[in-house]
Amino acid sequence: MNIEVNILLTGNELMNGDIIDTNSVMFADQLSSIGLNINKKVTVADDLIILRSQIAELSKTAKVLIINGGLGPTIDDLTSQALAQACGVDLQLNTQAHIHLKHWANKRNTKLNKPNLKQAYLPLGCEIIANATGSAVGISIKLDQCLIICTPGVPSELAHMLKDEIIPSLQQAFPITNKIEVSRLQTFGMGESTLQALINDKLPDWPDEISIGFRAAMPLLEVKLTTQCSKGKVLLTQWQEKLSYLLGDHILSTGKSDKITLADHLVPLLIKSAKRITLAESCTGGLIASQITAVSGASAVFQAGFITYSNDMKHKMLDVPNTTLANHGAVSQETVLAMARGALEKSNADYVIAVSGIAGPNGGTKDRPVGSVWIAWGNKQTLNAKYYCIPLARQLFQQVVTARGLDLIRRMLINSKACPNYDRKG
Amino acid sequence: MNIEVNILLTGNELMNGDIIDTNSVMFADQLSSIGLNINKKVTVADDLIILRSQIAELSKTAKVLIINGGLGPTIDDLTSQALAQACGVDLQLNTQAHIHLKHWANKRNTKLNKPNLKQAYLPLGCEIIANATGSAVGISIKLDQCLIICTPGVPSELAHMLKDEIIPSLQQAFPITNKIEVSRLQTFGMGESTLQALINDKLPDWPDEISIGFRAAMPLLEVKLTTQCSKGKVLLTQWQEKLSYLLGDHILSTGKSDKITLADHLVPLLIKSAKRITLAESCTGGLIASQITAVSGASAVFQAGFITYSNDMKHKMLDVPNTTLANHGAVSQETVLAMARGALEKSNADYVIAVSGIAGPNGGTKDRPVGSVWIAWGNKQTLNAKYYCIPLARQLFQQVVTARGLDLIRRMLINSKACPNYDRKG
Repeated sequence: MNIEVNILLTGNELMNGDIIDTNSVMFADQLSSIGLNINKKVTVADDLIILRSQIAELSKTAKVLIINGGLGPTIDDLTSQALAQACGVDLQLNTQAHIHLKHWANKRNTKLNKPNLKQAYLPLGCEIIANATGSAVGISIKLDQCLIICTPGVPSELAHMLKDEIIPSLQQAFPITNKIEVSRLQTFGMGESTLQALINDKLPDWPDEISIGFRAAMPLLEVKLTTQCSKGKVLLTQWQEKLSYLLGDHILSTGKSDKITLADHLVPLLIKSAKRITLAESCTGGLIASQITAVSGASAVFQAGFITYSNDMKHKMLDVPNTTLANHGAVSQETVLAMARGALEKSNADYVIAVSGIAGPNGGTKDRPVGSVWIAWGNKQTLNAKYYCIPLARQLFQQVVTARGLDLIRRMLINSKACPNYDRKG
Repeated sequence: MNIEVNILLTGNELMNGDIIDTNSVMFADQLSSIGLNINKKVTVADDLIILRSQIAELSKTAKVLIINGGLGPTIDDLTSQALAQACGVDLQLNTQAHIHLKHWANKRNTKLNKPNLKQAYLPLGCEIIANATGSAVGISIKLDQCLIICTPGVPSELAHMLKDEIIPSLQQAFPITNKIEVSRLQTFGMGESTLQALINDKLPDWPDEISIGFRAAMPLLEVKLTTQCSKGKVLLTQWQEKLSYLLGDHILSTGKSDKITLADHLVPLLIKSAKRITLAESCTGGLIASQITAVSGASAVFQAGFITYSNDMKHKMLDVPNTTLANHGAVSQETVLAMARGALEKSNADYVIAVSGIAGPNGGTKDRPVGSVWIAWGNKQTLNAKYYCIPLARQLFQQVVTARGLDLIRRMLINSKACPNYDRKG
């Protein structure tokens, strides 16, 4: 059985949109690592009556209720007061909390002021949880069958308290019975619905015990397989392999990854094979280069990029013949191939990506509408070029063109034989 | 009386910490702009029973319930189904939604697959809300006294739908009685605490009726003044003027703005003055160019950019003398000035930004630590160069260098006499 946790977040700044809630990610990560599930998360403003009623309600439907925020020194910090009322006890000067505050003030060469002293008045019968960095101690108290834990809203304080205090004690209180097994695949080139349709079609006997989730992290798509059944690990490995076989070179990596661009995947491949890349960018205007150079260690594989936005500069910087530009236009196979050859020559790199297209919203014609793009890629021996039509808004278009260019080189480096099945190909 | 709104966010990826919820900020901003308050926000996983019961519960305690997420094509998208059950109606093929999906597929040169078709099955009796960019239409339906509105989870789709469809119709349905007046300033170059200290110091009689909020949208900082008092508008105008005077050329614009990079502010200035810009980028590796070319209409002011990552390419592409590189190093005043002159000459542009620095995490020395950067900026008549030390992580460093370079040209174009007071100057 899963032990379920409810989360109550409090703070006017969360409700009025002045801050983004990043604490939730911390809670989810830490709790799932010890097999605890979050059932429901409620966010409310700093209002005593609302807080009190939410504490009463949320403590009824989970074994654990974690409250985040409202432990600070100011008048809008109401968690202790609301908790005392919900539990039907008084607020009282807590000796341990008082000592903690005095130490905290001493370390800062300051005296406890009245607002800070408020942080030592806690619900009668609670236990305190150490805060290694801030003034607000955490609180734990039992209300009927529910363990209520109050935590500070400051992310750095929360991080310490969770890791060092709360998670170890929850782990002891609720030993794992059925661990959640997770498996992840980073993919590129197929949309969520294409991928789902493919799975439905080719793997019709997909087991109920394994749930599939998708996370679009444009332009990548993460596929996450989760199971909680007893044979979880074996089953997961087996079906991850089937899925990997199905998706082939659309898979960039397996396992939890913090790689968010194609360049994050490509640069290590280039480093490993000791090859250098150069770029001739028109419609992407430096985006491919910026993604490559955003990766630490890029200087080993990248020395020069050419941003040739006008016809004139395609000629001057990359020696694209004026006749090619005049006869075929900037957005043509002939021009991107000439750009690619020029960039290889001028930079002496091993690989090249060259792109020329119409990012829009203006500049389209009937023959070459907005979204048209020619991508050339390869090395001195093998240069390819392909036309795509990607009718997306300007910046999305630039991102997709960038990702495809990088992916085409990645496929060369891993000796992929398969033709990429990009969703929106022209 | 304030009209209260409940929000229900759904998504396993939100519950298990795979993504950070940024949509809440959008809801808070947009709703408060038309005088609507958020009462309570609940986040749950993609679970039909939980969703259905939350819809029933949350629709009882507010005039409006906005549901976010779960409108996608995959099996874990359950909002329509849960909503139909909560309202006691069937799911039915919605003709308008079907037409929208067919158009959406046509535009992408693809056919509607079965998962996508699921998005056309909506609760009987609902109205659809247009989605300008994505496949999922929004839904609106009445349940007893509550107006329920379903919105897509993809932030860019949500942004359009909120602004163009939902907010105008809510504004009509619930006219404002006590309007919140808001005034915004987009700024660059000073951090939140520096700015707050400056206000405390120079404007000590700041009125209680106007609250100040800061939103860091790296690298820009938005300052938001809010008031609800009866003389709000007059008071706000008066104090916004005082603040504008205090912050001077650190202000990029006033009023609500969707400009998120310095380039968004710079490109229109260049277009207006009919001037062209070129770039010589080393440590930013194309990021400055990519931000300029991300702006629609950039081709009028930008023709070429030079990404010279290695010393050799600084010499070959920009004619930086080998002796300059040998005597002063790549990260030096002499080198960035030579890069700037080279780029101006090769591109025949009017303005130039040249940067050379150490993005890290490796490559620092005792004399030139990670975070060191020389920026040169100007035109053929006036070229300036300045050293900064920006000891941030690689990608943040690149972003800040990019923003400062663009800001320095912006200041030239508006004839600013003031020296920018960048926080972390070396």
